[in-house]
Amino acid sequence: MADQHALRRARGGGGAARRAERTAVKIEAAKYIERKIPNYGMLDEATLEIIEKNAETVLEEVGVNFVDNPQALEIWRKAGAKVDGERVYIPRGLARELCKTAPAKFTQHARNPDRNVEIGGDTLVLAPVYGPPFVRDADGGRRYATMDDFTKFVKLGYMSKYLHHSGGTVCEPTDVPVNKRHLDMLHAHMVYSDKPFMGAVTEPSRAQDSVEMCEILFGKDFVQQNTVMTSLINVNSPLTFDSIMMGAMEIYARNNQACILSPFIVGGAMSPVSVMGTLTQVLAECLAGIAYNQLIRPGAPVIMGCFVTSIDMNSGAPTFGTPEATQILNGAGQLARRLNLPFRSGGGLCGSKLPDAQAAYETAHTHNAALLGGVNFMLHACGWLEGGLVASFEKFVMDADQLGILHRLAAGIATDENAQAMDAIFEVGPGGHYLGCEHTQSNFKEAFWRTDLLDYKPFETWDEEGARDTQTLAKMRVTKLLNDYQQPALDPAIAAALDEYIKAKKASMPDALV
Amino acid sequence: MADQHALRRARGGGGAARRAERTAVKIEAAKYIERKIPNYGMLDEATLEIIEKNAETVLEEVGVNFVDNPQALEIWRKAGAKVDGERVYIPRGLARELCKTAPAKFTQHARNPDRNVEIGGDTLVLAPVYGPPFVRDADGGRRYATMDDFTKFVKLGYMSKYLHHSGGTVCEPTDVPVNKRHLDMLHAHMVYSDKPFMGAVTEPSRAQDSVEMCEILFGKDFVQQNTVMTSLINVNSPLTFDSIMMGAMEIYARNNQACILSPFIVGGAMSPVSVMGTLTQVLAECLAGIAYNQLIRPGAPVIMGCFVTSIDMNSGAPTFGTPEATQILNGAGQLARRLNLPFRSGGGLCGSKLPDAQAAYETAHTHNAALLGGVNFMLHACGWLEGGLVASFEKFVMDADQLGILHRLAAGIATDENAQAMDAIFEVGPGGHYLGCEHTQSNFKEAFWRTDLLDYKPFETWDEEGARDTQTLAKMRVTKLLNDYQQPALDPAIAAALDEYIKAKKASMPDALV
Repeated sequence: MADQHALRRARGGGGAARRAERTAVKIEAAKYIERKIPNYGMLDEATLEIIEKNAETVLEEVGVNFVDNPQALEIWRKAGAKVDGERVYIPRGLARELCKTAPAKFTQHARNPDRNVEIGGDTLVLAPVYGPPFVRDADGGRRYATMDDFTKFVKLGYMSKYLHHSGGTVCEPTDVPVNKRHLDMLHAHMVYSDKPFMGAVTEPSRAQDSVEMCEILFGKDFVQQNTVMTSLINVNSPLTFDSIMMGAMEIYARNNQACILSPFIVGGAMSPVSVMGTLTQVLAECLAGIAYNQLIRPGAPVIMGCFVTSIDMNSGAPTFGTPEATQILNGAGQLARRLNLPFRSGGGLCGSKLPDAQAAYETAHTHNAALLGGVNFMLHACGWLEGGLVASFEKFVMDADQLGILHRLAAGIATDENAQAMDAIFEVGPGGHYLGCEHTQSNFKEAFWRTDLLDYKPFETWDEEGARDTQTLAKMRVTKLLNDYQQPALDPAIAAALDEYIKAKKASMPDALV
Repeated sequence: MADQHALRRARGGGGAARRAERTAVKIEAAKYIERKIPNYGMLDEATLEIIEKNAETVLEEVGVNFVDNPQALEIWRKAGAKVDGERVYIPRGLARELCKTAPAKFTQHARNPDRNVEIGGDTLVLAPVYGPPFVRDADGGRRYATMDDFTKFVKLGYMSKYLHHSGGTVCEPTDVPVNKRHLDMLHAHMVYSDKPFMGAVTEPSRAQDSVEMCEILFGKDFVQQNTVMTSLINVNSPLTFDSIMMGAMEIYARNNQACILSPFIVGGAMSPVSVMGTLTQVLAECLAGIAYNQLIRPGAPVIMGCFVTSIDMNSGAPTFGTPEATQILNGAGQLARRLNLPFRSGGGLCGSKLPDAQAAYETAHTHNAALLGGVNFMLHACGWLEGGLVASFEKFVMDADQLGILHRLAAGIATDENAQAMDAIFEVGPGGHYLGCEHTQSNFKEAFWRTDLLDYKPFETWDEEGARDTQTLAKMRVTKLLNDYQQPALDPAIAAALDEYIKAKKASMPDALV
């Protein structure tokens, strides 16, 4: 491992890069979270066992569809499933058995080894919003996202101390043709950040392009021996695996790259309207998808995902931060741990159109549920607005600030003699004041988490300064972070090779709309 | 018990009251929460034992002050403590032993028996903000609170489905002389609501007035045999019990009325700057205060309270919704359960000046911590703004709506055959849609919690309707609830007797400023 680091430092460390490093502003980056506090389990053993039994019944008797994918059907047949048309009936226990080869924990490498993340076990890795076609900011309102917006979000992510991961489609750059977008998006993650990132999944060939770009960035051997991308494979719930997503997953698995196998469910529409029914379907889908991943390459890193929202039966709108979403997240975490698999869920999810109180209530519910529910990889941790239709600049920095709270909570409390503070209690005594005492003086700097954004000022100061609300403070912070941003050093030879690859790729095909 | 209900129904049920009842709008009122989900314990056994050991050391070696209260010193001396001046040194184990006579759970009666609450064990009772000298609303901004504001908050509390308790000083009516305020405040709770409420604590004589007014409302015998008030007794941290609060507590305990014995701590100022040091002091104070309560009347209902905020060391401002506050709340809950005592903490606490995203993040953190941390009585559950300096009309209804989430989460999930939804999964199958299936149709009305306030509309509708943020929606809801309000029926003879009592009391003393 140390050798690999040395190798990669050398790769990233040409003369120009070293010169750039010397003049760079030092940015703060927190290590991924390692929980020192227990997980919370909302469901009891008996309930979990019923869900597991029912999920096996679904796999065996209802089956799952692998669509437009004869090779997948053949693989399942050989593995012992009964295949009828595109329907795969998986005998009780088979999928769970196949899942056992998936690692409980894996390392995703970043081009800066200090930004490597461990995914699984007690860790929690935080990644930004994924997928919105729109952006919103306080000045410009809501509009279609562009590549310029995308780049700004990557820069904000790089500057966000508590964000461990650069993410993937932080917004859809709608000004770039659909079949070429992934090249520009990957390029932005590779050059404007040094944190780990996600690969393209909208077409198997784009997954292949992602692998090839990583081979330029990390070296071909390194990519084959290490995981350098974690990519999002959604299931077409209920119980359907389409050839595009499966095709992308096949490429990633064959290249030992990580996938998040993730049912994307609006409860009551794509799954039963009940929590237990939804958990049963989620588990069945994850078992089938992860088993298939392991059939492609046993031991490939894979994350059990669960993206579930409830639905407002009045408007049909998906709803976020609701108690049912918390229950499902928590139960899915328990099920993932019983499978010994890394778990993805949560995020700064909300339905609100604005980064207002509704957005914050809903986001905080999901952040808290994810921390205590044992989530290992939290996509959408910051920036999500309006049910994921919008990436919000202000909400990005608001949520990113909140992520500091998760770090602090996860660390647990100090229990040593200094933390017990008996000297202080004896020194101050009844009726005294702790502000001046020695223990306070020597501990106050690290004693309390402190926001980089929210208002803690006295009323009069706050009022004189314009009585600013959170969105206004966030707008100022977005401007400051983008002004302060400095690009992390990258070997110019690698940068040039990436440019060349992208140029050739783009020239090789006409623009397309899908 | 059934007899008492019948008796009280009869008291409340004169002819006029019955007529009023027939024409009244039926308001919805949720039962107090009974948790069907486990509590969350953040601290391990070893840490809890150290805190308990250290707290006993504090009581024995540092001691606590009972100020201006010779009778208390005498009681402690007789109980086996060492008294030196006003300092009481409590031998290891004595306070914990004395606490054992306090009930683990008790009933607080309301004048409407359907609104009675159980406090302790698995329950969670929600009460509104307490104490702010200012109010804020979207139109008028921030200003000193008046009796008119107070009455409006009581009405909003009565109209809030998920609020079980009318509270106490929902704001300070600064237009009424200090020594007469409690009469008008209690009167408002008694006549504008039929939910349980809190008594006055700002002077022992005002606690006595509170008991006497309850004797008019409930009947003298009923008050002596039952708990009809839960009142807030703050400790002057560190380790000091003043004669005003203790005097009020003595009156309540003697009359079998419940007290919340509650350290009020800004960590780093009134307690050590560390979580473990603060928990040690909180436990020592609670042990001493509750033990004293039980010395006054063994078996009197008493709640172990913990109101702790962190402090911003830059501005000196108290901060809310921080990770340290969550850690302390959670640890204090564990300590309370080990004492087998009801636990008070939490609330919709925030430092924000406005009901904006900051307010909501901070509030949601504390709401969630309180639910999972085993809180039995949550004061400040709604309406709290700006570190408790302000009662906000908009935030009151925003938070009160959020309390529905706590109810839903606490209920756990259904696990019966209908909830398992296997029929639905078989019916819909891979690639199908659940919206039309029979299971969805017969379950959707109760399937998901639904807000009464937040925006779930499609973007276009929301935009056409004025792109309203949460505060704007909340303002509309405040207006609607106050318009819809109808006073609950009360026997006119009782109403007249209360008026007469207050009139006589007010006439008996000149206005005073303290």
